[in-house]
Amino acid sequence: METIESMKRISRKNIISPKGFKAVGIHCGLKHKKNDLALLVSEVPASVAGVFTTNVIQAAPLQVTKKVVNETQKMQAVVINSGNANACTGKQGMQDAITMQQKTAEHLGIDSDLVGIASTGVIGEQMNMVPLLSGIEKLQPMDTLEGSIQFSQAILTTDTVTKNTAYATVIDDREVVVAGVAKGSGMIEPNMATMLGFITTDAHIESEHLQTALKEIADVTFNSITVDGDTSTNDMVLVMANGLAGNHSLTPDHREWQSFIDALHAVSRDLAKMIAKDGEGATKLIEAKVTGAVSDEQARQIAKSVVGSPLVKTAVFGCDANWGRIIAAVGYSGATIDPEDIKIYIGDTVVVEGGEPIPFSEEKLLIYLKQHEVKFAIELNQGAGQGMAWGCDLTYDYVQINATYRT
Amino acid sequence: METIESMKRISRKNIISPKGFKAVGIHCGLKHKKNDLALLVSEVPASVAGVFTTNVIQAAPLQVTKKVVNETQKMQAVVINSGNANACTGKQGMQDAITMQQKTAEHLGIDSDLVGIASTGVIGEQMNMVPLLSGIEKLQPMDTLEGSIQFSQAILTTDTVTKNTAYATVIDDREVVVAGVAKGSGMIEPNMATMLGFITTDAHIESEHLQTALKEIADVTFNSITVDGDTSTNDMVLVMANGLAGNHSLTPDHREWQSFIDALHAVSRDLAKMIAKDGEGATKLIEAKVTGAVSDEQARQIAKSVVGSPLVKTAVFGCDANWGRIIAAVGYSGATIDPEDIKIYIGDTVVVEGGEPIPFSEEKLLIYLKQHEVKFAIELNQGAGQGMAWGCDLTYDYVQINATYRT
Repeated sequence: METIESMKRISRKNIISPKGFKAVGIHCGLKHKKNDLALLVSEVPASVAGVFTTNVIQAAPLQVTKKVVNETQKMQAVVINSGNANACTGKQGMQDAITMQQKTAEHLGIDSDLVGIASTGVIGEQMNMVPLLSGIEKLQPMDTLEGSIQFSQAILTTDTVTKNTAYATVIDDREVVVAGVAKGSGMIEPNMATMLGFITTDAHIESEHLQTALKEIADVTFNSITVDGDTSTNDMVLVMANGLAGNHSLTPDHREWQSFIDALHAVSRDLAKMIAKDGEGATKLIEAKVTGAVSDEQARQIAKSVVGSPLVKTAVFGCDANWGRIIAAVGYSGATIDPEDIKIYIGDTVVVEGGEPIPFSEEKLLIYLKQHEVKFAIELNQGAGQGMAWGCDLTYDYVQINATYRT
Repeated sequence: METIESMKRISRKNIISPKGFKAVGIHCGLKHKKNDLALLVSEVPASVAGVFTTNVIQAAPLQVTKKVVNETQKMQAVVINSGNANACTGKQGMQDAITMQQKTAEHLGIDSDLVGIASTGVIGEQMNMVPLLSGIEKLQPMDTLEGSIQFSQAILTTDTVTKNTAYATVIDDREVVVAGVAKGSGMIEPNMATMLGFITTDAHIESEHLQTALKEIADVTFNSITVDGDTSTNDMVLVMANGLAGNHSLTPDHREWQSFIDALHAVSRDLAKMIAKDGEGATKLIEAKVTGAVSDEQARQIAKSVVGSPLVKTAVFGCDANWGRIIAAVGYSGATIDPEDIKIYIGDTVVVEGGEPIPFSEEKLLIYLKQHEVKFAIELNQGAGQGMAWGCDLTYDYVQINATYRT
């Protein structure tokens, strides 16, 4: 993470770090034991922005929430269940999603078109509405660390750790905080996969500008990670901005617009990397940085091709400096390259230059590859485009988790 | 396999089933113990056609062979080594590939531009030329089953079984035989991945028409399989047609053109399915058949998306009837679909129809999913397009094989 002046990472980071948010998570009974129902509420209706899965099959809750983002353009609460994705559940699934939204609105005493909903878990099974609805009635959002920890736990599926981050910046002499929480793990692929991300901020900003900022940042953060190449039916990242920091309304013309962008970017990148690192069965984060591409877009495309390659992923798991698999993934990425101009680093070690293998110490690279974060740098010498992507290794545990998911 | 009149599968099927071919395989020392050098020779120069990897990074031997296919348009021999792919090896690698071609030509007493070469194995290491060249001098091609068995063994890498097939048909009252041998296993993806395929036939056909036939058939066979989504630097499928069957020269206008196409198609499909079934670590062949797509191309695209999904692949390994993952893969395939029109079968069992889950017997499907071939049928009701794709399950063994490949 670069140090950006005037921005600091918050140590006691959680989704209610910005002013005016409360959160809670409970066990309602969709899962056997773990927390499975979460609620995030803003004191006042917040500007909202969202990015959603590109999968043509879109889960009912996602459709309901998209409507809030696109039509109401304000959101005051979002309720999330894990254990069932309510996806591919037909008319009944849509009815259940609407009921989930309405019951939450009634419980909070707000309009239902201010309530977003999200579901994650198994696809193709009808929602068990009895525990869900009685669970909603029990939700008591808190402005405490405990509430936000419960929230971050309740949205998880096969994740092994909760994912929280927060940054503070200064805009119009007011402290503005941006915080985020996410779940990821399986089915994570570039264009929004079963990844849920919720970002809160007390910045004052209209939905229109918030959407612009989120879209731009999502491409280089959430859409630049991959766990297994599968794109889920349920992914979404929502940003709620309730304005309680008291800054002047942010627009791209605001002289401190970039400070807000930097904080939103830092939160999004932290969450994206945490999701990649905690991919199903993963033991390592893989980062690929590409420079000298013909465009930033192509650089990201190559970086994603490398971190998404099952052969690269298994080699990293096996601590094998098999750079041939990296260059092969560069080659089939579809981007413009010249094999004779490529230089590849594993960590600080050059392994190929000008299309020729460079002798290196296997022992030194073995030590490097045993670390929990492995970095590849690929210089193409074709132009000024650059980009990064993150993924994880492919392990026995990935297979085990997914071979037995429903059982 | 459909029964096609006038065509029969040959029981003692091998690469020298057509008239005028000889083969041999030996251990020259690139691998520790196993056969690693293979040679296929035709009595007379044969018409040749080839399809090659779409990876921008192309191994030296592939570039050498492409030139023979494109410029000489005839081939009399092809020499293949396993244990080293001679890929990403720069100028030295190209020099070594040319030497491999020339030494084989000298050994056989034929022009070097009639010799194709292929290499498979680890990427990025210079070829060990001493054992390779002394091996070439020892190659004595045979017109016996033994020679062709040795050949089929010597081209393997992590394959667990040899892959041979052959069909006989009748053209101009002459028996015409088409035979094929292949290696596959890792790095297998649609557009030619470390897959090598060699097809022989005694049909009389010019290279131009042979190329047309191969291109068309490769798209619906070799390019419709996937093991891990990686596309290799070394893939190729070659067809050599030596004309010794004595039929009139085949063109698309020949009244028995379709008989030849059917035999070439059957050989290619057999090899493709054998490669998918023997994917690294695989225990099962997965077949996806898509009907009712807006085009044949989109149908294949969807079928490949389904058989390529890591989540579908692990579910099949775990015998889990998790159809949600199938429909999710349909959704992110990029093809035109309407979720409410989709019907999905696992084997003979309908699991979703009109976008709604259909109750089914988990026990019955568990028994079905324990078989070695698992079939999914997906009806889209959008048009008349249809297509198939083949893949394999994702298992602990895939991870093990690839985590330790170079060690």
